[in-house]
Amino acid sequence: MHIDILTLFPNMFTGVFQSSILQKALEKKKFTYNLIDFREYTEDKHQKVDDYPYGGGAGMVLTPQPIFDAVQANTVDKNTKPRIILMCPQGEPYTQKKAEELAKEEHLLFICGHYEGYDERIREHLVTDEISIGDYVLTGGELGAMVVIDSVIRLLPGVLGNTQSITEDSFTTGLLEHPHYTRPANFRGMKVPGVLLSGHHEKIATWRREQSLKRTYERRPELLTQVQLTEREKQFLKELKNNKM
Amino acid sequence: MHIDILTLFPNMFTGVFQSSILQKALEKKKFTYNLIDFREYTEDKHQKVDDYPYGGGAGMVLTPQPIFDAVQANTVDKNTKPRIILMCPQGEPYTQKKAEELAKEEHLLFICGHYEGYDERIREHLVTDEISIGDYVLTGGELGAMVVIDSVIRLLPGVLGNTQSITEDSFTTGLLEHPHYTRPANFRGMKVPGVLLSGHHEKIATWRREQSLKRTYERRPELLTQVQLTEREKQFLKELKNNKM
Repeated sequence: MHIDILTLFPNMFTGVFQSSILQKALEKKKFTYNLIDFREYTEDKHQKVDDYPYGGGAGMVLTPQPIFDAVQANTVDKNTKPRIILMCPQGEPYTQKKAEELAKEEHLLFICGHYEGYDERIREHLVTDEISIGDYVLTGGELGAMVVIDSVIRLLPGVLGNTQSITEDSFTTGLLEHPHYTRPANFRGMKVPGVLLSGHHEKIATWRREQSLKRTYERRPELLTQVQLTEREKQFLKELKNNKM
Repeated sequence: MHIDILTLFPNMFTGVFQSSILQKALEKKKFTYNLIDFREYTEDKHQKVDDYPYGGGAGMVLTPQPIFDAVQANTVDKNTKPRIILMCPQGEPYTQKKAEELAKEEHLLFICGHYEGYDERIREHLVTDEISIGDYVLTGGELGAMVVIDSVIRLLPGVLGNTQSITEDSFTTGLLEHPHYTRPANFRGMKVPGVLLSGHHEKIATWRREQSLKRTYERRPELLTQVQLTEREKQFLKELKNNKM
């Protein structure tokens, strides 16, 4: 996979690409990336990339020319058909399903805006996807692009050591993950639940699934509507709702 | 505001704190931060901070001791009562409202996990908040902490040049933002809507509000239930729904 990132702040990405899983994925040549400062593409004699909004109002708006030309220059000679992704609060809410979809692509190109916003013609005529990582306001699209890149790269075959880790994650099963415990069994008086020390695999599996259901019910009940449950699990949830547990 | 960050990958944060608004806020002394590698607090002779999960399963779990002790060491002498925030997929979904709440605090401490998860006792006995930035899986809590920090710092008084910029953002009004346009009025045949060139302030304000409603209706209709609308705006939405526009 190749990733292009259009940004006015390429240095923001350095630490993230040089750490942890992304660094390892780069070393294993699972992906390549290119940071593109789109200010280099502006035709403005003062190197400007933004201007006042038509109709007035606060803040500056990114002009279309540098971004159109930077995208063109970095895609025209490629054999791939890139997904051109605009990071913005008005975009499609990002989900694990979208991460899985993007992980199948050969070429992703991210446009990270800053300031008040983008000229609307970028949205209308240039991009293939608009993504929002959540309902909160950030100073730019860079952190959003890092989030998408991290979530996508970890799904590429061979990036994570253990494939089981992926399939048991929160959101991959549709439920929040069950609690984890590790050594010591008694930490300053706080103890690990006995079932986990029992060695009884079936009981442990049942406990984990029920804890996962319980946590999802308590914290994110709306997620439960999208999950296939056994009769026994439905009964467990019913008892939870009746406050019997 | 002071921010402590517990992480195994402190270098991930470098580029982000040295760019754009966060860099400016640091220069203006709007906040201070401390990156704490909690591996330095482990009592394990091999410097380990994780161990196998009780009950079996894939992945490694962060042990409680280094994190409890790192939090203790970095809060015990402070006069502040910090919010101790665990970044995790099981947390409360992060929103702009939560950003506004955290922006009022004096001291935030973020715990960024990695690997399969945290020992549950950290969640039960140490933290004050659990935050998830969205329904997708990341390789660690670091990007989530950066997202929360960026969204909080930009809300601190004097950080952004123009206070109006904050109040018109998406999610601050409860609606998605209206389109923005800037020069040129005709970019390679793609034109700016005439109303924005009219100079008629009232018409522009109405157009923007309606575009904001339209975009929210088309992309995120669930947000509309939480917004106060005038009779005229309700009528506009009704016409949208009846496909008359």
